[in-house]
Amino acid sequence: MEKIAQKSCVDFIEVLASKAAVPGGGGAAALAGAIGMALGSMVCNLTTGKKKYAQYEETIQEILAKAAKLEEELLSMIDKDAEGFYPLSKAYGLPTSTEEEKQYKAETMEKCLKVACEVPMNIVRLCFDSIKLHEELVDKGSKLAISDVGCGVQCLRAAILSGQLNVIINVNSMKDREYAEKIEKECNQLVQDGVKTCDEVYQKVLVALG
Amino acid sequence: MEKIAQKSCVDFIEVLASKAAVPGGGGAAALAGAIGMALGSMVCNLTTGKKKYAQYEETIQEILAKAAKLEEELLSMIDKDAEGFYPLSKAYGLPTSTEEEKQYKAETMEKCLKVACEVPMNIVRLCFDSIKLHEELVDKGSKLAISDVGCGVQCLRAAILSGQLNVIINVNSMKDREYAEKIEKECNQLVQDGVKTCDEVYQKVLVALG
Repeated sequence: MEKIAQKSCVDFIEVLASKAAVPGGGGAAALAGAIGMALGSMVCNLTTGKKKYAQYEETIQEILAKAAKLEEELLSMIDKDAEGFYPLSKAYGLPTSTEEEKQYKAETMEKCLKVACEVPMNIVRLCFDSIKLHEELVDKGSKLAISDVGCGVQCLRAAILSGQLNVIINVNSMKDREYAEKIEKECNQLVQDGVKTCDEVYQKVLVALG
Repeated sequence: MEKIAQKSCVDFIEVLASKAAVPGGGGAAALAGAIGMALGSMVCNLTTGKKKYAQYEETIQEILAKAAKLEEELLSMIDKDAEGFYPLSKAYGLPTSTEEEKQYKAETMEKCLKVACEVPMNIVRLCFDSIKLHEELVDKGSKLAISDVGCGVQCLRAAILSGQLNVIINVNSMKDREYAEKIEKECNQLVQDGVKTCDEVYQKVLVALG
């Protein structure tokens, strides 16, 4: 099957807009996150080799290497989100005529919810790491490209919050409250810290632009 | 030449991350905006025909028609941003050895800045219209897809703020301050109102998710 991430931007938007089960909010979050990190990479690529930023060259190269990995992982989450959601979408349709069926459906749903939740949780983690790279970039990247750092953190802010919404909808349905609360706690901390950093970086960009 | 919007998501991210002049923050904003509006369309497509939402059927159909147009226009901005930036990128390289050359460069730059500014300004306008559709959708769309309304407004929030950053960098360099301030004023009002609406819609989504 053709990977969703291999679709053209135009085709991705078309299938996203349709009522097809995937891609949905999770896939959208993954792509928005990849856009954000890619803007950070662009800023690195416009900074590297420039005399004015020679003191940051090593850091810029380190950010670039980490960023490439994060972009690849975020892109892979588009299709992983689809794969992770598939068993859950099937479980919704299980019969509930007898007590045995009801119990089987409940157990299957619980397992599938945990699987479906893993991908948006990973999107949140990857976006958090990407945001932290932007925190360095806003100070060390070329000032000529500082507006792109601002666009980058805005896309990542959207992506981490969208990832969180997709964690919430899965976690809300889980019966295993201990597991659910553990996931939710990790997610909320990353999002709170991540969004705060995005807003701080964005403010620095606005100040720099005058 | 291949349209940027026809590139696969993977290839778009690769060229965005590179030091190539386009796509940059403008193209990223356009795609993020299209993702946001497409999520809104998806919510419409998951609402239409459902008995529970029959009273909103007409509105949903109206939103769907407007959304399709906005998605198409936002996608077209990816390549229009590249086209609009091209003359400016050439103007930067004009010679400035003589007074005549300096004056010619200044005049050319001014014209090119106005052209380059049009696309991000249009992205801001299109995102604003897309956000206003989400304002209706959060109340009238299927509650089963309300998290996607939240993802939609977050992507549009990122897109309108990124569009604004790209307006700012062009406007800042303009000599024609009257023109610059007119553009800036329109942009700031749309962004202020648009972001406020995004935050309100997102809060409604959080409340609905419990």
